[in-house]
Amino acid sequence: MEVKEEYSKLVEMLEERSHLGGVMGVMHWDQEVIMPSGAADSRAKQMSALAGVLHEKSTAPEFGELVGRLHAEGSEQFNAIEWCNIQEAKRDYVLETKVPKKLVQELAELSSRGHVVWVQARKDNKFADFAPVLKRFIELKTQWAKCVFPDLNSYDANIDIFERGTTQERIDPIFATLKKELIGLIQTIKDSGAKPNGDFLQGDFPVAKQEELGRKISSEMGFSFDHGRLDVSVHPFCGGAHPTDVRITTRYRADNFVESLYAVIHETGHGLYEQGRMPENLDQPVSEPLTMGIHESQSLFWERMIAQSRSFCTHYLATFQAVFNGQFDGVSGDQLYDAVNICESSLIRVEADEITYPLHIILRYEIEKGLFDGSLQVDDLPGIWNDRMEEYLGIRPPSDTLGVLQDVHWSSGSFGYFPSYTLGAIYACQFFHSMKKEIPNIEDQIAQGHLHPVKDWLNKNIHRLGRLYSAEDLVKKVTGEPLNPNLYIRYLKEKYAAIYKITLG
Amino acid sequence: MEVKEEYSKLVEMLEERSHLGGVMGVMHWDQEVIMPSGAADSRAKQMSALAGVLHEKSTAPEFGELVGRLHAEGSEQFNAIEWCNIQEAKRDYVLETKVPKKLVQELAELSSRGHVVWVQARKDNKFADFAPVLKRFIELKTQWAKCVFPDLNSYDANIDIFERGTTQERIDPIFATLKKELIGLIQTIKDSGAKPNGDFLQGDFPVAKQEELGRKISSEMGFSFDHGRLDVSVHPFCGGAHPTDVRITTRYRADNFVESLYAVIHETGHGLYEQGRMPENLDQPVSEPLTMGIHESQSLFWERMIAQSRSFCTHYLATFQAVFNGQFDGVSGDQLYDAVNICESSLIRVEADEITYPLHIILRYEIEKGLFDGSLQVDDLPGIWNDRMEEYLGIRPPSDTLGVLQDVHWSSGSFGYFPSYTLGAIYACQFFHSMKKEIPNIEDQIAQGHLHPVKDWLNKNIHRLGRLYSAEDLVKKVTGEPLNPNLYIRYLKEKYAAIYKITLG
Repeated sequence: MEVKEEYSKLVEMLEERSHLGGVMGVMHWDQEVIMPSGAADSRAKQMSALAGVLHEKSTAPEFGELVGRLHAEGSEQFNAIEWCNIQEAKRDYVLETKVPKKLVQELAELSSRGHVVWVQARKDNKFADFAPVLKRFIELKTQWAKCVFPDLNSYDANIDIFERGTTQERIDPIFATLKKELIGLIQTIKDSGAKPNGDFLQGDFPVAKQEELGRKISSEMGFSFDHGRLDVSVHPFCGGAHPTDVRITTRYRADNFVESLYAVIHETGHGLYEQGRMPENLDQPVSEPLTMGIHESQSLFWERMIAQSRSFCTHYLATFQAVFNGQFDGVSGDQLYDAVNICESSLIRVEADEITYPLHIILRYEIEKGLFDGSLQVDDLPGIWNDRMEEYLGIRPPSDTLGVLQDVHWSSGSFGYFPSYTLGAIYACQFFHSMKKEIPNIEDQIAQGHLHPVKDWLNKNIHRLGRLYSAEDLVKKVTGEPLNPNLYIRYLKEKYAAIYKITLG
Repeated sequence: MEVKEEYSKLVEMLEERSHLGGVMGVMHWDQEVIMPSGAADSRAKQMSALAGVLHEKSTAPEFGELVGRLHAEGSEQFNAIEWCNIQEAKRDYVLETKVPKKLVQELAELSSRGHVVWVQARKDNKFADFAPVLKRFIELKTQWAKCVFPDLNSYDANIDIFERGTTQERIDPIFATLKKELIGLIQTIKDSGAKPNGDFLQGDFPVAKQEELGRKISSEMGFSFDHGRLDVSVHPFCGGAHPTDVRITTRYRADNFVESLYAVIHETGHGLYEQGRMPENLDQPVSEPLTMGIHESQSLFWERMIAQSRSFCTHYLATFQAVFNGQFDGVSGDQLYDAVNICESSLIRVEADEITYPLHIILRYEIEKGLFDGSLQVDDLPGIWNDRMEEYLGIRPPSDTLGVLQDVHWSSGSFGYFPSYTLGAIYACQFFHSMKKEIPNIEDQIAQGHLHPVKDWLNKNIHRLGRLYSAEDLVKKVTGEPLNPNLYIRYLKEKYAAIYKITLG
């Protein structure tokens, strides 16, 4: 077979895997949004069978040999897109063939069952019911890590899946700096005694109106409802089957519309990344989102940089006033801006403001590190969680439901995912800095409700590039410098000094 | 390997196929109920890839050899359940291995795309837009028939998939008798000039209340919403992933609740068959529903024999009165019974009464016969459809949307399915006859709102038996005689003679 013909064969195989991956996407979404409760067992078996098929396809010797032959041809035989697909296929083949099918299936089944156990344990406030799932996951994910990256320590291997090339060695100093600076910043804000008025964000917000508002703003951000959906789930997420079928979720509280709306905006940010992938290669690895940190940079870009900005609040105040009759009478855009940026230690990560949020992440990162290196035990987590919440944020969760059981991630064995949230926040800040340089009047445009230049800029600079660059190279290409946490710290200090009328060093 | 060990291996393989079949069930349901419109292309590819996997599994030589060895051991080596699984596996293997993968995938892709084309053509009232899909399906299904049953004519091969062992030779005389008798009966009813009052069935029925009512009655029939769902789709159907995840749909019209409610009852009848399968062998062929005719006998049992009975109407009148405030003031149970049994020629099959319904089926049966034997051409169908509607029912459709484009079946290439509806009606009548003999006070129980004895009887006599008997043997076992269309004709004549106060021979 000629090289081009062999490459076409590879693309065909990769696209088949993408199609089957899309099927798995529907199964996941369905499980979290739609599935009847009594179907948990059958669903676990179905997803396990499908995971088995995907594993078979990914480990087929025919596939491995083809990838090996193409890779041996060298990069000069291919264009950048082709070579990226070959490299991605090679990495995946190496990753997949090192994991025995039995382990893959056990992980898939535990993931499916674990979700159901977690939902119930969270409802019952019983961490002990979830603990066996978590213990088994640590065992399985440690075994898994030894199979796939024998040279990395187990937690680094888990991180690598979400944040390729990033290790504890790189994260530790970033998080150490953040931890120190943010604990100090939070203390200064507390000591200031200042507190913007946020009373008007409490009230009676009918769910149907919240949903209507979410759809409106998501559409104005550029999300295509012909190629996506908005539904309800326990934990908001962005999933689906394909860039033409992107499904975001939120959850509603009748007394607080901000939480739900900003979840919609956050998940729309993820969704726009998916819908914005390079259109010619939608079912190929080259078009896939880069890392979880870059994915998160997109959701946080919209949530923090755009939707919590003064210009966004100025424009959308009138919309809020129109949707929620009378609720915002006499409120100014500046007051709304201050209110959506109130900094206050809180128990739930997804409700946290942008200053306290990284400390939620650092807590989880430290726990995951400890579970993998054996310095922490699963049974001790509720106590550890509560102690450190008190140490970092000055509040103590009254229940596991509001503490260690709050997040969905561990119920599917996703360790090493959490750091991406805060890496994403740093990326987002740095991207926004560059966007403002390139589009100097962008804040005026947002203040007039023109969000499409934001989407277009992200499409062009991030989404359409797929995996053609590493995350490290992408941030250099887009911003002219490597990932820089100090820019993020400076941004937070400047912003909150103004809101809280304090002086910061 | 020992025989028992080999049999266990077979069960494992069959269960894997069942799990993957469940995945396909979710994909189908999602496509019809949930999927964004712009995802049609990607969905077609995903379902095609999954169909390809199922085909690979079904045609694996390892599987065929195992089945061959077990079958060669002979029935005396196994109990009835084991032997049934082996026989079913053998039939499936023979069926699947005769179809090339390419043809399987082309059928799956056309099925997925065809559905989208049909939805649009129906909306636009443009049969010509759908015609190419239909033509291609006839070609592919003719090719397919030659592969799987070279000894049968093409249409018989299509029928055999839905109604195993039934051919045009067996159906023709039954349908000839029905056609003659029903055209006569309809004429007599028309000539009588009588018409029960059905005015109170028209009105304003809020969709939310209709849905509440549908859920209530479905629950009272015994449908488990912990193991199923009720949603909305263009054409009502019963699908889902598993007996623990059975999904029924209906559609709502604000001015007519009967159509929607009886669709819920009909689909619940299908759903109860699925939820009632033998619990020990849920993922094995032995527990699967028998034929489409038997499946339809279960939906029609509930829709026609139960929900259109005097006792059901007597009991549920009070419920209707409570749900739809004031709408049924002064209406008696007998009046409701007469109204839901009004016989009137109408354009849409799923809205047809039980006398005119079989003529809708016979029309479709004749068209399918003609398309496969070449005596009818796709492009002529709108004219043929309208002419025969006039001949059999005395009405002429004003549009293809209300005529030849009304049904979903052809959009997925399901030819030979329609006859099952009327065979099912005949089975249902015969089963009900037997149930009344075994539970003499069943009508009193229904009149008191006790529907569970009906469900229990069907669970025990039909659902739990799975595929242990052929349809022919099952009807003999349950009713003591073979399928008997004369019982059905007698039932119709007696019932409608009373409602229309006419004398019938």
